[in-house]
Amino acid sequence: MNLLKERIVKDGKVRGNNVLKVDSFLNHQMDIKLMNEIGKEFRRRFDGEKIDKILTIEASGIAIAGIASQYFDYVPVVFAKKTESLNIDNEVFECSVHSFTKRKTYKVRVSKSFLKERERVLIVDDFLATGCATIGLIDIVRQAGAEVAGVGIVIEKGFQEGRTEIEKLGVRVESLAIVEKMEDSKVYFK
Amino acid sequence: MNLLKERIVKDGKVRGNNVLKVDSFLNHQMDIKLMNEIGKEFRRRFDGEKIDKILTIEASGIAIAGIASQYFDYVPVVFAKKTESLNIDNEVFECSVHSFTKRKTYKVRVSKSFLKERERVLIVDDFLATGCATIGLIDIVRQAGAEVAGVGIVIEKGFQEGRTEIEKLGVRVESLAIVEKMEDSKVYFK
Repeated sequence: MNLLKERIVKDGKVRGNNVLKVDSFLNHQMDIKLMNEIGKEFRRRFDGEKIDKILTIEASGIAIAGIASQYFDYVPVVFAKKTESLNIDNEVFECSVHSFTKRKTYKVRVSKSFLKERERVLIVDDFLATGCATIGLIDIVRQAGAEVAGVGIVIEKGFQEGRTEIEKLGVRVESLAIVEKMEDSKVYFK
Repeated sequence: MNLLKERIVKDGKVRGNNVLKVDSFLNHQMDIKLMNEIGKEFRRRFDGEKIDKILTIEASGIAIAGIASQYFDYVPVVFAKKTESLNIDNEVFECSVHSFTKRKTYKVRVSKSFLKERERVLIVDDFLATGCATIGLIDIVRQAGAEVAGVGIVIEKGFQEGRTEIEKLGVRVESLAIVEKMEDSKVYFK
């Protein structure tokens, strides 16, 4: 997706060989026009797939999933929660996820009310790197007896193992920009 | 906003006299068509106001703000972060917020890059109860030398002090549904 890659080159900030900051347009400040283009592109990539629900994880995935839903006949969006709140049902699907960015392991939960057997679920997120968060979501979908229709990622770090791990689970991954490497403050796409 | 009130009556769940669960359509599973109607209604309420940016707080406010932006000429959306991430700038506006739902106090942060002097900022959130989170966001906007154009709330607990506290700060509050009381599992609107 050229519009996205151009934006990453223009406004992304590379820190070392691994950190790509896109917080001016994707995951702290958000460009909602760009997110609409991202939603359209997910629709195009998963054209012909029956999608009953979009699942993501708080916080950065939420706007991406919400805007994308508009291009998938407004299917319901569910976001997995990372923290224990008093207001969540006791009946949850749950898994553990390790965040390398935040250097901690946390529980991820989805209320059992919002994932049903045989539903076809599209998982979306802003980044794919190690794949930990996405694999946790796939696990949750399968606990529910639902089916993962695919994974839609905005930016994939192609030099990390996430895609391989997800494909091992028999799940299709579509990433709108795949970063091959970062070097001398520059981003190289696959 | 009748559509919203009807939905609260139909799908909201009252727990005791204080907890209103709307996680089947607003803050865990999300009805994106309803969110579009919410966005339109915010636009109508703040018609004529110059809005340069929409500010919210993770996680539940994010989709509401993102969808609403589409009715405010796609102004940038910024969400305040609750956790310390390695990927946030060191240069942040910051305040402390107490969550009664989660029974803890946490830091709320917005990168200094994304709020500028004299910008007119619309704050939106899913709930207004004690007002703690919203007052924190107002504080952050003012730290930046920006101006709060108003506060847009989806559901206000009219029996708590949030509105009074915010209005004391000279800020206009628009809530799309104001709950007067909850009793015997029923919701009464103002």
